[in-house]
Amino acid sequence: MPRLTHFDPSGAAHMVDVSGKAPSARQAIAEGCVVMARETLALVIDGTAQKGDVLGVARLAGIMGAKQTANLIPLCHPLTLSKVALDLAPDPDLPGIRITATVKTSGQTGVEMEALTAVSTAALTVYDMLKAAEKGMRIEGIRLLSKEGGKSGRYDAR
Amino acid sequence: MPRLTHFDPSGAAHMVDVSGKAPSARQAIAEGCVVMARETLALVIDGTAQKGDVLGVARLAGIMGAKQTANLIPLCHPLTLSKVALDLAPDPDLPGIRITATVKTSGQTGVEMEALTAVSTAALTVYDMLKAAEKGMRIEGIRLLSKEGGKSGRYDAR
Amino acid sequence: MPRLTHFDPSGAAHMVDVSGKAPSARQAIAEGCVVMARETLALVIDGTAQKGDVLGVARLAGIMGAKQTANLIPLCHPLTLSKVALDLAPDPDLPGIRITATVKTSGQTGVEMEALTAVSTAALTVYDMLKAAEKGMRIEGIRLLSKEGGKSGRYDAR
Amino acid sequence: MPRLTHFDPSGAAHMVDVSGKAPSARQAIAEGCVVMARETLALVIDGTAQKGDVLGVARLAGIMGAKQTANLIPLCHPLTLSKVALDLAPDPDLPGIRITATVKTSGQTGVEMEALTAVSTAALTVYDMLKAAEKGMRIEGIRLLSKEGGKSGRYDAR
Amino acid sequence: MPRLTHFDPSGAAHMVDVSGKAPSARQAIAEGCVVMARETLALVIDGTAQKGDVLGVARLAGIMGAKQTANLIPLCHPLTLSKVALDLAPDPDLPGIRITATVKTSGQTGVEMEALTAVSTAALTVYDMLKAAEKGMRIEGIRLLSKEGGKSGRYDAR
Amino acid sequence: MPRLTHFDPSGAAHMVDVSGKAPSARQAIAEGCVVMARETLALVIDGTAQKGDVLGVARLAGIMGAKQTANLIPLCHPLTLSKVALDLAPDPDLPGIRITATVKTSGQTGVEMEALTAVSTAALTVYDMLKAAEKGMRIEGIRLLSKEGGKSGRYDAR
Repeated sequence: MPRLTHFDPSGAAHMVDVSGKAPSARQAIAEGCVVMARETLALVIDGTAQKGDVLGVARLAGIMGAKQTANLIPLCHPLTLSKVALDLAPDPDLPGIRITATVKTSGQTGVEMEALTAVSTAALTVYDMLKAAEKGMRIEGIRLLSKEGGKSGRYDAR
Repeated sequence: MPRLTHFDPSGAAHMVDVSGKAPSARQAIAEGCVVMARETLALVIDGTAQKGDVLGVARLAGIMGAKQTANLIPLCHPLTLSKVALDLAPDPDLPGIRITATVKTSGQTGVEMEALTAVSTAALTVYDMLKAAEKGMRIEGIRLLSKEGGKSGRYDAR
Repeated sequence: MPRLTHFDPSGAAHMVDVSGKAPSARQAIAEGCVVMARETLALVIDGTAQKGDVLGVARLAGIMGAKQTANLIPLCHPLTLSKVALDLAPDPDLPGIRITATVKTSGQTGVEMEALTAVSTAALTVYDMLKAAEKGMRIEGIRLLSKEGGKSGRYDAR
Repeated sequence: MPRLTHFDPSGAAHMVDVSGKAPSARQAIAEGCVVMARETLALVIDGTAQKGDVLGVARLAGIMGAKQTANLIPLCHPLTLSKVALDLAPDPDLPGIRITATVKTSGQTGVEMEALTAVSTAALTVYDMLKAAEKGMRIEGIRLLSKEGGKSGRYDAR
Repeated sequence: MPRLTHFDPSGAAHMVDVSGKAPSARQAIAEGCVVMARETLALVIDGTAQKGDVLGVARLAGIMGAKQTANLIPLCHPLTLSKVALDLAPDPDLPGIRITATVKTSGQTGVEMEALTAVSTAALTVYDMLKAAEKGMRIEGIRLLSKEGGKSGRYDAR
Repeated sequence: MPRLTHFDPSGAAHMVDVSGKAPSARQAIAEGCVVMARETLALVIDGTAQKGDVLGVARLAGIMGAKQTANLIPLCHPLTLSKVALDLAPDPDLPGIRITATVKTSGQTGVEMEALTAVSTAALTVYDMLKAAEKGMRIEGIRLLSKEGGKSGRYDAR
């Protein structure tokens, strides 16, 4: 059975010792979406084209959210980041907004949590900006798409 | 068509003027879940019973996350909060963890975003603590369950 | 000679006691500008019209900056805010960007510093986004335009 | 025409990828000033000599502000800093306070924004501490004096 | 046996519901000290008189630390504060520095933790500034001296 | 007489220039305790065994507090951290809780302040969680136990 690394042998939570790990180039990509009514999505699409840029605000919130990861997730290591980018795209089939975040660092730990936090913060911001129109929106499918770098190597979601 | 209150008539994002609203008692409840493999859930359940309290750490992260809402969501009003509570329960049917957050304030704006941010931060923390065991977990179904107080009155999710 | 209220009689800095003040509706408006070459301003105007919204990013940074005021200015009281709005307008006569911020609260102290911090953060963000094109830009004329509310009453800059 | 690096080809804001850059020793120096009435400046000079150290408080605020740069400026990279120093000097010719900030790092991006943010935060703090005496003070001339290090090399303001 | 209010009946940590409490004027005073060698204290006293104001820096850190209380102490309610003041005095009998903090609010919960956090942050800052001279300093006797206001009424330490 | 490195020759506080120091592996261990009545300690011990995990909450607060060190202590350098661990143990002889924190980094400055801040934040959190039972608790004996790495080498408290 795998061991949960965030606990020491006595069961106490700790920030794992990564001082023995070599710094390496690392990248993580995460995704998620906000599902909404077709009418709500229309407001986003119209606003982005004309005025009231919901996606631009949420993209910025996601970038800034990535930088808060170590303040939000108790056992995350504070890191410098070398890239944060988000893509937010309306998807009429959901209907809703698909969000993807890519984060890079050169360090001793991975940036999975930074990518997931970026997606999560952007999704919450989409909700905030549209909640006057629809309170029933749902944030769905936040997950890690891929990671590269570090000892555990590459991971790709199926 | 509903107007998006976070934009002024010219389309510029702003923090809405709530100075004309009377302070009132407000509450919001939000939920969400982390879906995982049955083996991963077993690690949580065993750890909580014995040592390595994943749910206790995530609960605390959710409470502290609620207090960061106005720093994370660009157009949220900074608020004092009078209650934050989270419930995290293993659900073998998911399989995974169900998370519910209740937030109260007495103020001029609602606490929907605080409740959703609490759920979201707790879910990310569950992911962080279990990712050594399973990278394929998904955060699903984050949504507002109910809100009370304020001019728009009560909302209950269907 | 006026007394500097941020120091006690012995000269020690302190956060002034406002507990005896009645809460009242307060508003402050501040302004400032970023002066740049005509070619740099053209980049902003083109980008805003088409893609690469410098002013939208800076506006959001200003709103979020207002919320950080009490964390940045040592003797500022932490406050709830009921409105933050920024206007950023290209001015070919500077040439550059004119920034105005309006902040409201209902509380025991004024929001001059919040309005000035919003302008300042937006100006720094304009600099950051354009510095690849011109490092010689200058932030000029940050000042309080007006304040209302509180015992000291209304102030209007000449 | 120079390209604005903070936007990707589609015009979306992002935190630029610096992972390909070699870490190098970097330094930036910025300046600015707070212009005030001669009587207000006299309060500062008297206070610093005797009691009520306006410049000492503002210096500290500037140092701490530099450390908040990545939280305030949306697309700034989080950095470790190896030096932050501020000089605040009364200048009877303004009349007012001249502020200079020097910041160093060894990393993949420059520290221009950290130096400018330090100056800006110190200037706002000077305003805060003196506003009981004079509301009409202005923050003027915030600009980059020089930068060293990195691929773009040395810059000196004219 | 008294009940620990920060846990619900099932033992889960939560931020206590204070929404039923009436806002009232509240004050808390806390104290603590940093014990050091006589030679180290001499450095502080000489520096304060001439140059290198250890106590001024620590006083400011304590004021700013009080404002971070709800971010540091997981179950503390976020509050507005109406006064924060610190007194730091050399005491040759310790030998060392005695620190006292007074905090006021008008709200639904007390400010004991804000006063204790102010003392604690000021004491850590004294240590930081003097550690080049003496690493063996100790922070001692941090405790609540008195509190007023709220349903539980007045408390005075013996 | 030792020089206080946090002041420049003119007596102005600054963040020391460490850019000339080679990065090296560094570790610091600090300790402290919360002294309380025997009855209060019994509440902790019972709660940890059954429900209401005071020590688990305080441990997490200490880990998160270590990450806030550079935001709290004005002249501390912002750092990445490679390990943070806390041990909290009931000690019937105090009676009270003994707290030890171990922090590691690989960088240009030591992590003494991070270890001391972790202990201090955990101690304040213990106080917060138990203050409904006993307001007279005291935080005592916060000190550096040892440090390793850097030019000044190893330090061990007597």
